[in-house]
Amino acid sequence: MDIVADELIEARWVLPVQPWQVIEHGAVAVRNGRIVAIGTAAELAPRVAASRVTRLPEHALMPGLINAHAHAGMTLLRGYADDLTLMRWLQESVWPAEARWVAPDFVRDGTRLACAEMLRGGVTTFSDMYFFPDAAIAAAQRAGIRMVAGLVLLEFATAYARDAAAYLHQGLAARDRWAGASNLHFTLAPHAPYTVSDDTFTQVATYAAQLDLRVHIHVHETRDEIEQGLAQNAERPLARLRRLGLLGPELIGVHAVHLADAEIALLAEHGAALVHCPVSNLKLGSGVARFADWLAAGIPVGLGSDSVVSNNRHDLFAEMRMAALLAKGVSGDASVVPARQALHAATLGGATALGLGAETGSLEPGKAADLLAVDLGGADSRPLYDPVSQLVYVAGREQVSDVWVAGERRVTGGCLQTDDAAELIALATDWQLRIAADRPSPDNQRGRTRS
Amino acid sequence: MDIVADELIEARWVLPVQPWQVIEHGAVAVRNGRIVAIGTAAELAPRVAASRVTRLPEHALMPGLINAHAHAGMTLLRGYADDLTLMRWLQESVWPAEARWVAPDFVRDGTRLACAEMLRGGVTTFSDMYFFPDAAIAAAQRAGIRMVAGLVLLEFATAYARDAAAYLHQGLAARDRWAGASNLHFTLAPHAPYTVSDDTFTQVATYAAQLDLRVHIHVHETRDEIEQGLAQNAERPLARLRRLGLLGPELIGVHAVHLADAEIALLAEHGAALVHCPVSNLKLGSGVARFADWLAAGIPVGLGSDSVVSNNRHDLFAEMRMAALLAKGVSGDASVVPARQALHAATLGGATALGLGAETGSLEPGKAADLLAVDLGGADSRPLYDPVSQLVYVAGREQVSDVWVAGERRVTGGCLQTDDAAELIALATDWQLRIAADRPSPDNQRGRTRS
Repeated sequence: MDIVADELIEARWVLPVQPWQVIEHGAVAVRNGRIVAIGTAAELAPRVAASRVTRLPEHALMPGLINAHAHAGMTLLRGYADDLTLMRWLQESVWPAEARWVAPDFVRDGTRLACAEMLRGGVTTFSDMYFFPDAAIAAAQRAGIRMVAGLVLLEFATAYARDAAAYLHQGLAARDRWAGASNLHFTLAPHAPYTVSDDTFTQVATYAAQLDLRVHIHVHETRDEIEQGLAQNAERPLARLRRLGLLGPELIGVHAVHLADAEIALLAEHGAALVHCPVSNLKLGSGVARFADWLAAGIPVGLGSDSVVSNNRHDLFAEMRMAALLAKGVSGDASVVPARQALHAATLGGATALGLGAETGSLEPGKAADLLAVDLGGADSRPLYDPVSQLVYVAGREQVSDVWVAGERRVTGGCLQTDDAAELIALATDWQLRIAADRPSPDNQRGRTRS
Repeated sequence: MDIVADELIEARWVLPVQPWQVIEHGAVAVRNGRIVAIGTAAELAPRVAASRVTRLPEHALMPGLINAHAHAGMTLLRGYADDLTLMRWLQESVWPAEARWVAPDFVRDGTRLACAEMLRGGVTTFSDMYFFPDAAIAAAQRAGIRMVAGLVLLEFATAYARDAAAYLHQGLAARDRWAGASNLHFTLAPHAPYTVSDDTFTQVATYAAQLDLRVHIHVHETRDEIEQGLAQNAERPLARLRRLGLLGPELIGVHAVHLADAEIALLAEHGAALVHCPVSNLKLGSGVARFADWLAAGIPVGLGSDSVVSNNRHDLFAEMRMAALLAKGVSGDASVVPARQALHAATLGGATALGLGAETGSLEPGKAADLLAVDLGGADSRPLYDPVSQLVYVAGREQVSDVWVAGERRVTGGCLQTDDAAELIALATDWQLRIAADRPSPDNQRGRTRS
């Protein structure tokens, strides 16, 4: 017994992701929140002195899923505005609702609901972009989920800040207040090319370099954004970011639905990362991003849910499956994006894109013990010829049985350990009633029939 | 009390589908397997003398889902061949495995597994196309699910039949043997234009007219099929079906990924129906069918899972969500295929396409009590602004709590009443071990890493 561990977790299949292999009857040893050993159970059991042994006989044990793009604070608006064209969605539903409701308590409670949903669904890290990051961070810390807090910046006033300088100031102040918190990381998050000025982008580039922060930004989400950029600046938004010094390894570009070949090559050459949000891109009618081409170019790619106003789930199993299926369907080649690549994007790809590749995303000694067990023992998962295929094409988040963040159990037997379901339901319902009561009259709504 | 019922089911929301409305605090009364009344609980409770009252306070009660295209007998090959180009998928995996394994016991056990999965996921009717229909029907009857048995025909020999005449003979004999069985319907199912001759199609048309059977066929699934048809017959497959007398209200065309405007108009004009299998079409790289255009043309449209070798779930919630999302994504218009249309296709659209529109697909007095309750009370379903949005964009099949087929409860509290989960798992695992052991050597397989 040469390895001391707090917990030894044995599972039918262990997927380290890096290196890529499937360990049959595998095991992972965890100590002080970190992985200390991985191998077959037969190898590890005699070598590990563990305070606790967990056996998962029908389960796949894998790295926790990374939701590389979310607006968790919007969760209280889940399903508030569906089936609307993008401009009606924004102008008639999302922006007015945000103007009315966004405040620290709304962000805190929405993020709390989102964290519960994500943890139960096997997400151990999420990268967020929203207002009032203090409130969101407080919710994530309480839930015990790893968070990359995006310090949002834009030019126009909201309840959170009056101008870009104030956004930056408040964001950095929040970062200072949470210095030393565990499972917490930061990005600068200028909202999008069409909402941020050249001056602000230049400042973002300076701060990103000085503070060693990545830059998390929506980019090339729609054709309109690109056309508007061309009209206003005589350049495509990505070219503008490049001119302003933001095209580098610190860039995390989200959506990127519309990229030319040369732009993909440029992103790859500069070491920038991308985040694919396939469900949101479909639901808002933005199109289908060139996920397979990004991977082929060697770009680090993560998957994201976006907000539940455009999804309407924080469900990385759904994104993983959709990413693989869409890539095949639009290319006409069923061998494009095999299950393995989708699973990689949902784990190590996302971690790498967020700059956390040394901390999480794979089961390697020294990394944080961010882990997920998926029960593949049910009849709907049978027969099982390949656990990776089953995880991507068959499994749903409801099969997640156990989740650890930095070695701490957050979900056990499918039940969240860090929050109370009844309390969450009451909280969400209370908000729902207030928000629905305050909604503009039905005449302003689309023609849903209600009894 | 002027209505006598075996069961009165009260739910937070009742969705009859026809007429389209959401009844808040609704109720459905069932007698002798049929719906006898529907309305608000306040209206019905004083009028109905029910032997049993079921209250579902957080649930949506809706028509059972219709899986309008499946090959249930292939379920023992779930995940057997993923991420392969269509021709490798067929030639190197599916056809050899079928040649080796397809026999009555394989079909019976696979169909049994599929029926369990479908019922737990809220599917009350499935339309099947596979060999050995006797074995499949026996499994469906045991499960208590409504089945449309497709009597398959093709030209080449299998373990089931040696030529088209034998297929037809055996299919019609099976139909005779099951005459009088409840919850059972039939179609003639010529496999596809590229596997069936002109003579056989002419015979199919004659029998369809004489026996009042619909014709269930794969058509225009891939560009190759159309090009091959043009090369061999100097006409597109749909034109050939028309020439052979098969383009009429009896036609149920499956996949139809590649249709020209004129073909859509022609199908609509002749009253033919289509089945959209969006997940399978993506996974096999076939493309994206013009679902929104079909609906706009007034074609009756259902949704199907296809087999779990190309899906890998029999999950109509996944198809419904995918159908809505894809239509938006490929059109660039988020208002295309609103939740309501997707839900209609998964229920009454499917029933109408199958010729069962008078029997199932909506909650109307006189129809069979094929019902489904979805629990929308969980935290992941909150907040809830619109139950239809929640059913399509948020809900998963794991939220199905109760299912009735012809008034008989098949699922209660998420548990299947008509089969034993442990037995199913053992059965599927036994087949899996035999099939995997017999698989061609790994050298013939794609480069999956296994430990």
